[in-house]
Amino acid sequence: MTDPASHPETDIVRAAPIALEDCGGAKALEILSDRWCWLIIRETLYGVSRFDDMRTDLNIPRSVLTSRLKKLVQDGLLETRDYREPGSRTRTAYVLTPKGQALAPVFMALMQWGDTHLRGGRKSLALRDGRTGLDVRSALVPLGTETVPYDALELAIVPDA
Amino acid sequence: MTDPASHPETDIVRAAPIALEDCGGAKALEILSDRWCWLIIRETLYGVSRFDDMRTDLNIPRSVLTSRLKKLVQDGLLETRDYREPGSRTRTAYVLTPKGQALAPVFMALMQWGDTHLRGGRKSLALRDGRTGLDVRSALVPLGTETVPYDALELAIVPDA
Repeated sequence: MTDPASHPETDIVRAAPIALEDCGGAKALEILSDRWCWLIIRETLYGVSRFDDMRTDLNIPRSVLTSRLKKLVQDGLLETRDYREPGSRTRTAYVLTPKGQALAPVFMALMQWGDTHLRGGRKSLALRDGRTGLDVRSALVPLGTETVPYDALELAIVPDA
Repeated sequence: MTDPASHPETDIVRAAPIALEDCGGAKALEILSDRWCWLIIRETLYGVSRFDDMRTDLNIPRSVLTSRLKKLVQDGLLETRDYREPGSRTRTAYVLTPKGQALAPVFMALMQWGDTHLRGGRKSLALRDGRTGLDVRSALVPLGTETVPYDALELAIVPDA
């Protein structure tokens, strides 16, 4: 990767080409500030929407899950829906907003990196294009390349990965 | 996104389709556990390699930068190089390993999301394919789609974004 801030005479980069406050990546990290936020996004990408289900999946302390869900709603990544099971009080479910759904390529890129570099290439989940059945990957591509929209994505478990 | 763990009779997803320990994304989050780790990766993607330069760019406490750099080296994302400036002692520079370079698509996906959803579509940095001059984006694409390799990536500052 060639950097516009590199000094031709020394070839040493002394500063990032843009400041933190102008960087969409740094801005994103202000919201997605810790592992729990990401893991909750992961749950909701899978469609898990209920507090107790997330708590079981993630083994996350109740107070931490409460505070992170509140923050993710405030930040506009999740929205709430009421639901009620027979004999129970009304409870709150959490689903991704379009802004939150747009994190799917980020999380998939992260998962792909983890499978490749931390799990020796084993992947437990495959991402498919439901319209064609083709495997989907996260990648850097030239503008204009045909992409797979969120609604077309399907997950498939890879047995004994 | 359709989830294989959804219950057809209720259409409610009660659990993630794979456990955390089988998830490349969750594994990745064990390493990239906080905002500082990501911001240091960001510096090194830009080519910033020196402790004092990172400290200035990120306004990060010295002890935090020291501990995070040590962790990123242990985790195999960064490697060290000695350098020496005239009249100074030998110092350590930090550069990405191939495993660390492979995080470029993840960070670019994050930056793209931040520019789109947190900065109203303003982007301060454009990513280009140095071979063709075409803009590059992070996306979910069908397997087999031609991608832009790390070595071909070039950054261009977008004026007054």
